[in-house]
Formats: sequence, C-alpha cells, structure tokens
Amino acid sequence: MQSIKEESAFARDYLAQVAKEAEAKFDEHLPPVTDRPCRLHEAMRYSMFAGGKRLRPALVKATFDMFGGKGDKVWLATSALEMLHTFSLIHDDLPCIDNDDYRRGKLTNHKKFGEATAVMAGDALCVLAFELMGKTGNAKAIEALAHLLSTYGLIGGEMTDIECEGKKVDLDTVDYIHYHKTAALIEAALQVGAMLAGADDKSIEAIRNYGRSIGLAFQIVDDILDIVSTTEELGKDAGSDIEKGKATYPSIVGLENSRAKAKELYDESLKALDSLKCDTSILRSIAAFIITRVN
Amino acid sequence: MQSIKEESAFARDYLAQVAKEAEAKFDEHLPPVTDRPCRLHEAMRYSMFAGGKRLRPALVKATFDMFGGKGDKVWLATSALEMLHTFSLIHDDLPCIDNDDYRRGKLTNHKKFGEATAVMAGDALCVLAFELMGKTGNAKAIEALAHLLSTYGLIGGEMTDIECEGKKVDLDTVDYIHYHKTAALIEAALQVGAMLAGADDKSIEAIRNYGRSIGLAFQIVDDILDIVSTTEELGKDAGSDIEKGKATYPSIVGLENSRAKAKELYDESLKALDSLKCDTSILRSIAAFIITRVN
Repeated sequence: MQSIKEESAFARDYLAQVAKEAEAKFDEHLPPVTDRPCRLHEAMRYSMFAGGKRLRPALVKATFDMFGGKGDKVWLATSALEMLHTFSLIHDDLPCIDNDDYRRGKLTNHKKFGEATAVMAGDALCVLAFELMGKTGNAKAIEALAHLLSTYGLIGGEMTDIECEGKKVDLDTVDYIHYHKTAALIEAALQVGAMLAGADDKSIEAIRNYGRSIGLAFQIVDDILDIVSTTEELGKDAGSDIEKGKATYPSIVGLENSRAKAKELYDESLKALDSLKCDTSILRSIAAFIITRVN
Repeated sequence: MQSIKEESAFARDYLAQVAKEAEAKFDEHLPPVTDRPCRLHEAMRYSMFAGGKRLRPALVKATFDMFGGKGDKVWLATSALEMLHTFSLIHDDLPCIDNDDYRRGKLTNHKKFGEATAVMAGDALCVLAFELMGKTGNAKAIEALAHLLSTYGLIGGEMTDIECEGKKVDLDTVDYIHYHKTAALIEAALQVGAMLAGADDKSIEAIRNYGRSIGLAFQIVDDILDIVSTTEELGKDAGSDIEKGKATYPSIVGLENSRAKAKELYDESLKALDSLKCDTSILRSIAAFIITRVN
C-alpha cells in the first residue's frame, strides 16, 4: 500500500506524460496561425498553450485505457475536453464576467488580444471541440458531454456563481456551484473516455460517481489554496475569491472543515471505484494528487 | 411555370408553416424558466423567440423531406440550427463586437439581460444545439455542422468582418466574409437535413452548391436592404453598415451591380439543383424568396 504522497507523485508523473502527448495533439488539431483568420487562431493557441495540469485530458486517457479502449480516437477527445475547459476559462475571465487580468501567470486572452477576439476564441474552441468529437463517430458521447457542459452542468454553475457574487449563500448553493462549475466537466472527461472505450452502463455510473467526488474535492482545494497560497505560487491572483465576494467552502465552514470535507470526498471517490473489476490504480493516484496539490 | 413573385409567395407560406411547428419544438427543447439558472434560461428563450424568418429550420426540413427522410429527428436539427444562428447573433451584438442595441425590433440580449448573461446565453445555445444534434445519433452530421460553424466557416467570417471594419477592402475579401459569415450556416442547414435523410455524397455536394449561392445572395440582399430600407421596415438599424464602415457589396460595386450579382447567384442556385432527381420545387421557391424579400 502506497502512502498518499507516493500516490500523488505517481499521478504527477502520469499527468506530465499524458500532457506531453496531448499537447502534441493540440498542435495537430488546432488551426495553424498561417490560416485566415490568423489572429484568432493565434488567440486560440495562446490560451491552449498557456500551461495547466491537463487534468481533463489525463482523465479521458486513463479511463479509456482502463476500460480497454483501442485506437487513436481517444486523442480527439483529450483535445476536445481541454478546448472546452479553455473556452470556459477565456469567457469566465472576460471584463463583463470575472474581469481577470492573469491566468496561469500570463495575461488573460482578452488582455492580450482584446475582448472581441477573446469572445470569438472561446466560441471557436467550443465549436472545434465538437468537430473533433464528431470525428470520434460516437454521437452518444457528444450528447453526454454537451449535457454536462450545458445550463444543467458547467454553464449553469458559472452563471449561478456570477449571480451569487457578493451575496450571502448557504452551503447547498456552494455545493450546487462547485458541482456544476468544476465537477461536471471532470465527470464528462471520465464519461467520454469510458464511452469511447465501450464501457457498460454500470461502469460508466461508477466512474461518474468517482468524478463527482474528485471534482468537488478539486474545487474545495482550489478555494483553500486561494486563501493559503501566494499569487506567485498560484499563477493567478491569490485571495481573489474573497475580494470578489465569491461563495466558497472556507468562507462558510472555515478552513479546517473544508480540509476535512476534501478528505471525505477523496474517500468517497475511492469507494466509487471499488465496484470496478479493472485496474483503477491511476485514477486512485489522481484522486490523491487532487487533494494534496499545492497549486 | 410560375413567376418569381408567385414562387416567392409560395416560399413565404412554406416558411410560415415550418416556423410554427419549429417554434413549438424550440419550446420543447429549451430549458424551462423555472429551472435553475432561471434568468439564463429566460435570456436564451428571449432571443430564440424574438421573431425571425426561421430560414435555417425551413432549409433543414425541406431538404430532409426532399431526400425522403423519415421520423422526428429532423426537429432536433431544426432547433439546433436556429440555436446556433441565435448564438452567433447574440455574441455579434455584444458591445465589444458590433455593439447593437436592437435586433428584430427588440432590445438585443445584452441590453435586456446584461453582458455577462448574454455571453452565457450564447454559449448555452451553442452547447444545447450540439446536445440536440447528439440525440440525432449522426456523428458525421455533427462534424460537418461544426466545421461550417468553425474558424473555417461562420466564426471565421465574423472575425474577418470585425477586423475589416473601417478598412478599405477588395471584393475578394467581401466574398470571403459573406460566404463565411452567412452562407456557411445556410449550407450547414441543407447539409444536415440531407445527411439525416441519408442522401448520397453527390446529392449532398449539389445541395451545398445551392446553399453557397443562396447564402451569398441572401447577404448581398441584406446589404442592399440596409441602404434602401427604413429602420422600421428592417426591425434593426438601417444604414448601420455604412455607419460602422462595414465591407459590403453595394459599397464596392454599387447598388445596380449588387442587384445583378444577386440575380446571377439565384440562377446558379437553380442550376445546382438540376442534377437532383427529386422534387426541388420548395428549394427553388426559397431561392426566389431570398432575392425578392424586402425585410
């Protein structure tokens, strides 16, 4: 039995390894900057190559492999999931929404390219993601992915997050926001990987439960890091949640209870994997990574 | 042989008839305003029910029927195409892009709901469109649709349109903008209708050629109407192209040559239909409607 630290280190290596291959595929799937409209293609690439853990591509790949998926189509989905994540970040950073100047230590898309281009770059990444998903030939996976991104998923979470800024909200609302804003796309990455591999419905249900738990844990850890870290460590403005009056776990239940909740979700995520017959070691290590990460 | 005026009147009736059925389906496919996030769902519905000719749904339906398509899945695509069109209009009207206050005689989405909600409403309509397309089970149609919407289609046209504002541009660039900004989604509506009906590749190629011709004609007529109509007739600001320094056909070749070009494209569109064995009367009448419309 490995310690949680060892598991986390293992996941970190796995993420780095998938990131390398996934990024080569981003380059292949993104339009070249020499094609018209050049500046828009440049803006799409700028945000796609601005760093990041590439967690969603890794979850797609790990799940696809775990369920015995074969062939190259998985890389269409790893690109699609990272494009959808990037699309949501670019629009979220816009002046009319979160009005953020930095993301991952670099200027946000609209600060670098202007607002009009940033709106379009987000739109274009979203549309390209569905074009790539179309190429997988799996319409059911597209339906599932779009639903988890919709107003019943990620977009619903972002909208509610915006609406609740500066208001006093209860824990149920924070749970709603966290689940939709963050966990839904993590769940989608797992579900798409499983569906492309041809996993059965029961296995897909198990993997989605795992995704909801690590997704919520991921966001709670994010909220904790926003308080305890420096801007340099985070690559984005630390303390910005408080400044914006964002609804967060620590602001309602305090730091210690938030840490306890993240640990509880970690345990739940491992339990969700128990029903699966395949080798779940990579997903277990990723769960460990998520609750021990420092940026 | 009917006159062009009679054909146009026939198309007008057909559009009105499809619009009624398509709008009932929009209502079914859009989230209810009682579901969270309520205001976002309200904003999505506001723009979807702000009127319009429902040209794209009619093209999907006419093509699907013409190629012998059977079943209800066509209505998933009619909703999807109108949602994608509405998504593009909402984002296009934003202050950072065209900064329009009125659309179809009503306040634009951001004037009514605020910028953040308008960005999200556009995003949500785009994502919901792909969810509905996923339900058709036709991944190839999704790929084709997304491509025509991408930076190589509609989004590419919009971006170039923005970049060329106030600049002196040549006719090739105006053609590029018109084709991408307007014709691409019209072509997509036809292609999706044909693909869902199971049309063969040669027929799809013919219908796409028809679409490119009527799409370009549609935009040229739009540019002409922007000059010769009043704001009341148009339901949006007349003369706004000139005011914004937009690249248009009339501004480069004059009104008369623009009218001649529209007529030439009309003839080309009918020629594209000649190779088809099926009854093309509805599409012929829609082409007549497009070049004779006054709003």
